[in-house]
Amino acid sequence: MSQPALSLEHAQQKDPLALRQAIAAGHYQGHTAGLGQGRVQANIVMLPSDWANEFLRFCTLNRQACPVLDVTEPGDPYFRNLGIAIDIRHDVPRYRVYRHGELSEEPTDIEHLWQDDMMAFAIGCSFSFEQPLLDAGIPMRHIDLKRNVAMYQTNIDTRPTARLSGKLVVSMRPMKAAEAIKAIQITARMPNVHGAPVHIGDPALIGIHSLSSPDYGDAVPLEADDIPVFWACGVTPQSVMQASRPPLCITHAPGCMLVTDLWNNAL
Amino acid sequence: MSQPALSLEHAQQKDPLALRQAIAAGHYQGHTAGLGQGRVQANIVMLPSDWANEFLRFCTLNRQACPVLDVTEPGDPYFRNLGIAIDIRHDVPRYRVYRHGELSEEPTDIEHLWQDDMMAFAIGCSFSFEQPLLDAGIPMRHIDLKRNVAMYQTNIDTRPTARLSGKLVVSMRPMKAAEAIKAIQITARMPNVHGAPVHIGDPALIGIHSLSSPDYGDAVPLEADDIPVFWACGVTPQSVMQASRPPLCITHAPGCMLVTDLWNNAL
Repeated sequence: MSQPALSLEHAQQKDPLALRQAIAAGHYQGHTAGLGQGRVQANIVMLPSDWANEFLRFCTLNRQACPVLDVTEPGDPYFRNLGIAIDIRHDVPRYRVYRHGELSEEPTDIEHLWQDDMMAFAIGCSFSFEQPLLDAGIPMRHIDLKRNVAMYQTNIDTRPTARLSGKLVVSMRPMKAAEAIKAIQITARMPNVHGAPVHIGDPALIGIHSLSSPDYGDAVPLEADDIPVFWACGVTPQSVMQASRPPLCITHAPGCMLVTDLWNNAL
Repeated sequence: MSQPALSLEHAQQKDPLALRQAIAAGHYQGHTAGLGQGRVQANIVMLPSDWANEFLRFCTLNRQACPVLDVTEPGDPYFRNLGIAIDIRHDVPRYRVYRHGELSEEPTDIEHLWQDDMMAFAIGCSFSFEQPLLDAGIPMRHIDLKRNVAMYQTNIDTRPTARLSGKLVVSMRPMKAAEAIKAIQITARMPNVHGAPVHIGDPALIGIHSLSSPDYGDAVPLEADDIPVFWACGVTPQSVMQASRPPLCITHAPGCMLVTDLWNNAL
C-alpha cells in the first residue's frame, strides 16, 4: 500500500471533507490507503442509465462481491447518503475511463465526461474490514510487506443479467488457522463489505492454479502452516465491465478510492 | 394468521414446487402462513421498467425495509435465483393491482396484466425470522392469538429517490426484556429479512401514538412487563407506492406470499 503524499496536511488526512476538498482542488492524486482514518472508503462505478440500471440489478444479485453503499439518481453527481457535498465528478484522486471495455485514460477529474443520464455507484471495499481484523490481532501480510492485496479470478460464476456476466474475483489473505476462524466471525458481521469469506484452503477448488501469480494486485509469500482465506472482491464489477464492454464506464483507479464521511464501525 | 386450506394435499403444503403448481392451477387462493415449511416466503412488487429501475434504487437505499432477494430482467416473469420454474404471473395465491396508487382489483393470476418491460421484485419477509425466534423459545403473541402481526407507520423518513419517498412502516412484537435481548441478537444475523430491530420501547419516540390502533394488521394486547420491539417492515414499499402513485403496480395480497425453494436457514 502506498503512503499518503507528504503534501497533504495532517488535518486533511483525518477530516474526510477537508481531504475531499484537497483532492477536488487537485492537491492530491495518489492512493487513499491510510487516509480519512476510520472512515469508509468506496469503490466507484459510473455508467449511463441504460447500463447503470442493469448494473444495479447485477449488484443486487451479487451482493457479496458488489455491496452497494449508495447510488445516485440519473444525472445527479452527489452521493447524498455518504456524507457532506460528495461530488463524484471531482472527489476521487484518480479515475479510470473504459470505452467499450478498453482502458482509455486515467484523468484526475471527470466533469467533462459526466452525462445528463449518468448514475454513480459506491461499492463497499475490504479496507473497511482490514482494520477490525488488525484490531483483533490478526496480521495482514500484504500491509506488513507494503504490497497491494493479492486478487484472483475464480471459476465461480456470478449471477448474470441480460448483458452482464463473468467470474467472481476474490482477494486472498494468508492466516494461521486460529486467525482464520476469528476473521470469519468478524467479517461475517460486515455484509456491507463482502461479509464472510467465500472459500478457505485449497485454491484449486475455486479454479486458482497459482497463488504466486495473482490476476490483480501483488503476490505475498505463504508459510507452511498458513491457510489462504478468500473474500469476494470489489474488483469483480470492473472485470465484468471489461468483459461486457459498455460504450462508457468510469471507475476509480485501483487504490484511489472515494473517502466518505461514514465510520467503518457503522457498517 | 389464517390456516392453510384443507383442500391442499399434505405433500403440496410441504413441497414448494408442488405448492406453486397447485396455486398456479387455481387450487389455492388463501394465505401462505405455515405452508412450504422452512422455505423463504417473499413480498412481491411488479412495475414497468421506468418505475422499476427507480424502485430498485429505493430498495438499495432502504435495505432494512426492502431487502431484495431477487429481481427479474425487464419482461422476464421468472425468478431465476429463488427456485425451479417460478413464474410470477401465476404462482402467488392472490395479487393486488394498484392503478395510480389506488387499489383496483385482487386477481388470482396476472398474466393479462403482464407487460413486455415489466420487472418483478421478491423482497424478504418477517415470516423468515419468526421461526428462528420461536425455536429460541420466544413466543410470538400474534401467532398464539391467531392474528396478523401489528404494523404501524412511523415518523422515520425513508431515503428518497426522485419520485419515491415516504415514512418507514414497522412491525411490532411484544416481548419480555430477556426475550427482546435474544431476539435482537438472532435477527441481527438475518440482514436479508429486515435484520435487527429499528426501535425498542416507547412507541411515541418513533411517532406511534397508540399501539392499540395499528395502521396495518391486527392489534395485540401488551402485558405490564412487555417491551414492544419494532422491526422495519416489508409493507413499507406498498405504502410508498400508494403515496407515489405509479400508473400500474402489482403486489401480492397481504399474507398471500410467494413461497420460494430457498431455506430460511440459508438467509
